[in-house]
Amino acid sequence: MSKKKPLILVTNDDGITAPGVRALIAVMAEIGDVLVVAPDKPQSAMGHAITINNTLYLNKISKEGDAITEYSCSGTPVDCVKLAVNEILKKKPDLCVSGVNHGSNSSINVIYSGTMSAAVEAGIEGIPAIGFSLLDYDWNADFDTIKPFIKKITQETLANGLPKDVVLNVNFPKLKKEDIKGIKICRQAKAIWSEKFHKRITPQGKDYYWLAGEFVNLDQGQDTDEWALANDYISVVPVQFDLTAHHSIQQLNTWKWNE
Amino acid sequence: MSKKKPLILVTNDDGITAPGVRALIAVMAEIGDVLVVAPDKPQSAMGHAITINNTLYLNKISKEGDAITEYSCSGTPVDCVKLAVNEILKKKPDLCVSGVNHGSNSSINVIYSGTMSAAVEAGIEGIPAIGFSLLDYDWNADFDTIKPFIKKITQETLANGLPKDVVLNVNFPKLKKEDIKGIKICRQAKAIWSEKFHKRITPQGKDYYWLAGEFVNLDQGQDTDEWALANDYISVVPVQFDLTAHHSIQQLNTWKWNE
Repeated sequence: MSKKKPLILVTNDDGITAPGVRALIAVMAEIGDVLVVAPDKPQSAMGHAITINNTLYLNKISKEGDAITEYSCSGTPVDCVKLAVNEILKKKPDLCVSGVNHGSNSSINVIYSGTMSAAVEAGIEGIPAIGFSLLDYDWNADFDTIKPFIKKITQETLANGLPKDVVLNVNFPKLKKEDIKGIKICRQAKAIWSEKFHKRITPQGKDYYWLAGEFVNLDQGQDTDEWALANDYISVVPVQFDLTAHHSIQQLNTWKWNE
Repeated sequence: MSKKKPLILVTNDDGITAPGVRALIAVMAEIGDVLVVAPDKPQSAMGHAITINNTLYLNKISKEGDAITEYSCSGTPVDCVKLAVNEILKKKPDLCVSGVNHGSNSSINVIYSGTMSAAVEAGIEGIPAIGFSLLDYDWNADFDTIKPFIKKITQETLANGLPKDVVLNVNFPKLKKEDIKGIKICRQAKAIWSEKFHKRITPQGKDYYWLAGEFVNLDQGQDTDEWALANDYISVVPVQFDLTAHHSIQQLNTWKWNE
């Protein structure tokens, strides 16, 4: 059986030169036709930011005849997806993958993550999407180990099709291949960042702050992404963008709103 | 019965001088003790962005003896909440309100909205929170009309307490008071922005883009925020930050992940 190769859009939030996205591009080139549109500089923790009060630039990086077409973009990860779909492709790709992020996007990190926001944006636009992250902030982290798992997860997603309005948040533990126990479907653990700002003083005598913080897992469940990662599994959380807390609507309807 | 006045944190994403936040501050001053920490410049569409690769500045705007303490902040709406709670107050306020946004944050806009991200951040930190938005982008929009409704919704929230891990997304139609039919609890409508980038050329001959687009409501339900607003109601959507698509976990567990 011969099938047309899928068209795969690749983006990230660490910038187009990051080893994480280069590893992702290498895997995707084995599976389909690849278009890369990624930020021209790091855009970590940009959440679902879009650029509405500033201009956007696209720069074609690849040359005529290159196997993979690549653009760097001056905007956020979400801008990259919007420009790729609406300006470069003028159609929907078969899949959008984002990452591999240098660092975790498990549990509450999904909310702050530019990597996952790019995947969510693709999902909103009706494109199957996966965000990949490795629990290693090192620029020279070992992405080779996780390549076969990225390939497997991508192929399963292409073969089965994602549930409607759902994208995948995949996190890899920082382990050798033989120590990874497998892939687990999880829910997002309840966790917070306990913030500790570092207050400093400029040479001119003005106070300023650096955001710092400590990750605190508040969730003892064994069905969470934090549990899976701590127990040597790859975590896969299905993520939705209907943020309605449907379970609370009945309770809120008992309030005296219109008296 | 005399009760201690609640401590209310006010922020927004249009910047501390925006008429929307000034209206919100005026209403909150009638209800509790108010601390304002808001961006020093517009931060619309910043989503849940936080500032991790740059310095943050707080500038105290109010003077000693002023009834309301106000700080402008160089960061995003989410940075404002984090700095207010962890550096200025060093404790949790009783409530965080964000807005009033100049323009809609209904349906999918909740994902892109700095106003709502500030409220969600407060919710993550365990603080009851409400985001308010008016369907009027005009800088000189009529915020007086909605003040009694803001007061009512805030008082109901303080009296009842919000469901756990839920914040409210409140949107007001652009109507005269006598034309507003009341307050409706809703779910988030399924909608998208259909993007049309405007391509232009710099004086130096380089292509650039402006993000533009058209809002498309894909949802015919009469229980949505879009329906409520189109039918002259104020919409209140309970918003959660557990993004897990719990309903899809069973289906994903049928895939061949570990073969």
